[in-house]
Amino acid sequence: MEIIKRELIDFNEREFPDEICFKPIGIAHTQFKTLKGIPIQSSMSNTKGIIEIFPQYQAGLKDLSDFSHIYCLYYFDMVRLPVPLQSKPFLDTESRGVFASRTPFRPNPLGLSILKILDIKENEIHVDNVDILNNTPILDLKPYIPQFDVIKTDKIGWLKGKILRKVS
Amino acid sequence: MEIIKRELIDFNEREFPDEICFKPIGIAHTQFKTLKGIPIQSSMSNTKGIIEIFPQYQAGLKDLSDFSHIYCLYYFDMVRLPVPLQSKPFLDTESRGVFASRTPFRPNPLGLSILKILDIKENEIHVDNVDILNNTPILDLKPYIPQFDVIKTDKIGWLKGKILRKVS
Repeated sequence: MEIIKRELIDFNEREFPDEICFKPIGIAHTQFKTLKGIPIQSSMSNTKGIIEIFPQYQAGLKDLSDFSHIYCLYYFDMVRLPVPLQSKPFLDTESRGVFASRTPFRPNPLGLSILKILDIKENEIHVDNVDILNNTPILDLKPYIPQFDVIKTDKIGWLKGKILRKVS
Repeated sequence: MEIIKRELIDFNEREFPDEICFKPIGIAHTQFKTLKGIPIQSSMSNTKGIIEIFPQYQAGLKDLSDFSHIYCLYYFDMVRLPVPLQSKPFLDTESRGVFASRTPFRPNPLGLSILKILDIKENEIHVDNVDILNNTPILDLKPYIPQFDVIKTDKIGWLKGKILRKVS
């Protein structure tokens, strides 16, 4: 058996990449079969679903059930590129910069949801707070750690006073 | 001038991808020229730096300075694949699943830092709480929105009682 170690490339080999490619580690199974009715944020959803991690990555789920929540990173595979750099977000009437918005229509359509872990059965993570389209490719999972991830701020730009509606 | 709209692919065209490729939208300029001494999390850093967004994406920064913090998503370009699915994290003595850890050595080496916005000058975002290696490729920025992103939990698995040391 080959033992895989954590290794770095040489600094001499380091080159700024033109393109960065990833392989999906899993797939989301959710009740959202179309884009209608998907909650605009995971924090506004009480829908349950399953994140299936492909068997070859299952060993990486060890110890995850001892955490309450995960950051789930995924690919908005329905987005057609290129996207506009400014447009009107769902919650606003004015055009905003894409990096000041959580729209899926991003230059790199990367999604980020915070999901509550309900149970992990083999390679299936049963989760709550789902705001992800069915069959979405999953790229990474990270444990949510309040000591790292909770930031207290009330400076939320154009969103001030607009966080009211719950589904798209 | 071509007007770019937000468009979806057809559901009929939808296919689960083998590979997902992104183009860097920017580059991190930080004082961390080697991996030694980089804080293990952005929340544990009081180092300032600059996220340079490439000029072709600069229009997407509109309105961002009205937010306090950003999620910065980037590529750990020094990681050699494949990585082990279980290994001993920096803060622990036992082997843990990669998805239950924030190690850079992940099947898809995606980094996530929460950075404080100090100032935005043209295509340069001056930030605090930097824990990113110099010249790291940036993939996405999202505004940090406490109403969406603050989760109260004390279930932090193997990390319980271990969040003490500050730099790697």
